[in-house]
Amino acid sequence: MRTVDLIEKKRDGGELTTEEIAYLIRGYVSGDIPDYQISALAMAIYYKGMSIREIHDLTTEMVSSGNQYDLSCIEGVKVDKHSTGGVGDKVTIILMPLVASFGVPVAKMSGRGLGHTGGTIDKLESIKGYQVERTKEEFIQQVKDIGISLIGQSEHLVKADKLLYALRDVTATVDSIPLIASSVMSKKIAAGADKILLDVTVGQGAFMKSLDEAERLSETMVSLGREVGRETIAVITDMSQPLGRAIGNRLEIIEAIEIMQGKGRSDITEFICELAEILLSLAGVEASSDEIRQHLVGGAALSKFEELIEAQGGDLNDLYRKSEAAHVTEVLADEEGYISELPALAFGKYAMKLGAGRATKGDTLNYETGIVFEKKVGDSVKVGEVIANIYSDQALTEELMDEFKSYITISNECKKPREILKIIS
Amino acid sequence: MRTVDLIEKKRDGGELTTEEIAYLIRGYVSGDIPDYQISALAMAIYYKGMSIREIHDLTTEMVSSGNQYDLSCIEGVKVDKHSTGGVGDKVTIILMPLVASFGVPVAKMSGRGLGHTGGTIDKLESIKGYQVERTKEEFIQQVKDIGISLIGQSEHLVKADKLLYALRDVTATVDSIPLIASSVMSKKIAAGADKILLDVTVGQGAFMKSLDEAERLSETMVSLGREVGRETIAVITDMSQPLGRAIGNRLEIIEAIEIMQGKGRSDITEFICELAEILLSLAGVEASSDEIRQHLVGGAALSKFEELIEAQGGDLNDLYRKSEAAHVTEVLADEEGYISELPALAFGKYAMKLGAGRATKGDTLNYETGIVFEKKVGDSVKVGEVIANIYSDQALTEELMDEFKSYITISNECKKPREILKIIS
Repeated sequence: MRTVDLIEKKRDGGELTTEEIAYLIRGYVSGDIPDYQISALAMAIYYKGMSIREIHDLTTEMVSSGNQYDLSCIEGVKVDKHSTGGVGDKVTIILMPLVASFGVPVAKMSGRGLGHTGGTIDKLESIKGYQVERTKEEFIQQVKDIGISLIGQSEHLVKADKLLYALRDVTATVDSIPLIASSVMSKKIAAGADKILLDVTVGQGAFMKSLDEAERLSETMVSLGREVGRETIAVITDMSQPLGRAIGNRLEIIEAIEIMQGKGRSDITEFICELAEILLSLAGVEASSDEIRQHLVGGAALSKFEELIEAQGGDLNDLYRKSEAAHVTEVLADEEGYISELPALAFGKYAMKLGAGRATKGDTLNYETGIVFEKKVGDSVKVGEVIANIYSDQALTEELMDEFKSYITISNECKKPREILKIIS
Repeated sequence: MRTVDLIEKKRDGGELTTEEIAYLIRGYVSGDIPDYQISALAMAIYYKGMSIREIHDLTTEMVSSGNQYDLSCIEGVKVDKHSTGGVGDKVTIILMPLVASFGVPVAKMSGRGLGHTGGTIDKLESIKGYQVERTKEEFIQQVKDIGISLIGQSEHLVKADKLLYALRDVTATVDSIPLIASSVMSKKIAAGADKILLDVTVGQGAFMKSLDEAERLSETMVSLGREVGRETIAVITDMSQPLGRAIGNRLEIIEAIEIMQGKGRSDITEFICELAEILLSLAGVEASSDEIRQHLVGGAALSKFEELIEAQGGDLNDLYRKSEAAHVTEVLADEEGYISELPALAFGKYAMKLGAGRATKGDTLNYETGIVFEKKVGDSVKVGEVIANIYSDQALTEELMDEFKSYITISNECKKPREILKIIS
């Protein structure tokens, strides 16, 4: 078998066989096939796509390229959750303790943020002492002990994805449904959970720009899960504006606690309840909407979250402190009306500039900076009212204030944003 | 400027600016841009193409990436010729001495063969002593002295093409009109001739499979030549069957001599006369068809060829010897009729198996082996007549004989193959 012939086959729209896909992935991971052949192949896949059979073979082969976690020693139906990336997305931090509070075992690995999207692991690390690295044994033991563990993705999980993702990132081959689907699902499958909830974000702040694309990606991933006996449900959610109030690591932890204290915005609170209902039904737990809401805002989720923080070495006093950003600047409304646009991509990049996100992998984060919105899309606003607070280390320049304001649209139209656009199972 | 953004731009069908193309080529040659980004870009170009402005910028930038030959110190209109590759293509070896015999200065660099196509330089090296390496000064001096020099392509000519071609070869991005056109024309422009004749082969033995593709490539290259003031004419020629009688290095030299002695097949003899007429008119030399024919078959071309061989260190006695292949096996006709198919690709690959061609760049050639056809498409044949002789080092197995015969089609149809399909200027 020659790699160039397989690239040509895909280039011309052919379907790679199971053996051919195995040859490519194994060769790439072993170093026998160089980056420059795989990047050309990835570009051909970008244009020509892959059949569901090819994507399934690719995913299976990627899973085999690294360690796999066997969670069968943990009793119960283990659940996992993944988001394709968003701005202000603190769902995992709230949702997973919530379902764990119902006795559903949560063994979850999360990633770091890059670009305008944040990462759960960075947010947890903003809590003093929180350890994101755990051996496989420690990880499993903690789930047995307290029902939840939330760690960084193991270096040894899905080696092919590590290599492939880094390559795609610099060769403009990220936005490919077969490659995104196999990347996400190979990690979820290797991580060992029985049931998987996927949050597929759509909008200009997400990878998927249109509902149609998001549906195709969702259907592909749900089908991949089914093929390997891991029931998967995909929820397509709106990422046209940031999720909840806060963007920024420490600020999002604070918002998560507010929500778990019943003091969060009702939209994100409702959203998390809906996701919990799906995840609990996947796990075979019957719980009414009221019971779920009670767990979320009545303290059960928060107490499970505190257990998690303590078990992973986090300082509970630090958990409840405020942001230590040197400057907090109010953004006031210049006109009256309804907030009609708060573009997620623009604010994600803005928060990155404040130090809350990484432009490149090596960048150091400032955990304290970011944005907290007092108004979201659909909210009414009067002249002089606070729309948002900007948390920064340096005094905010007039230029940065103008930039921030330029992203906000106020109009007479009272939009009702929807969080869940579609459920695919 | 970030390479990944430029890949994305091309991926989405955008037009790269002059500055962007310069950034990419200079970065690639300096080693700042890695292979894996350029191969992804090449695949995007494969699908999305390039505007004539982009191809022109790419070609100009490639020319600048290496040494350029200034032939202005040689008097007269210097001509060059290039073939996009064929099977049994010994045209350069005959055509260039022929036009040089009219006093037109020929300063030509040629390449080596790869895959099923042969290379002029390999054919010349089958003559004992022939030196293909010359300094720029020696090269120019020889043209001044005897009016012709035929050497291997300088290592320092068009560095970008060297890198790019090697990369395209292993990433299934060879068959791209913008990339072929810029590769060919950058070398021709850097080599310094005033006028260029391009032989664009078409058929299953060539890069261009259809006349339409060949026309687009030809028009692109003619336009590139015009843009830089190097008048260029492209001749689209049939490569559905091998050119002339012989395939194989020494065997093709023998056929070339036969043609220059007036003992060649009339079809290839005519073909070379037609090409010479175009090349001479490009050089501003008026010569009738009869005069050209007389130069070709009457000894003038051969005597110029001998001058060339001697000047480059070749042994004239060796020039006239026969092939030293250990075995010559006749292929006899099993049925009566007309030869209607002699597929160039199949016979090119067959000759490669006999040792006459290279499968990969490192392979050593056997100069003596190959095929000599006694019958070509359109010729009538009787049972038991010799269709071809196979020159091999090992006795020919029955299997190889059967394979050879399986490529020959004899039918009642008397095809009249055309050599020149179209002229584009």
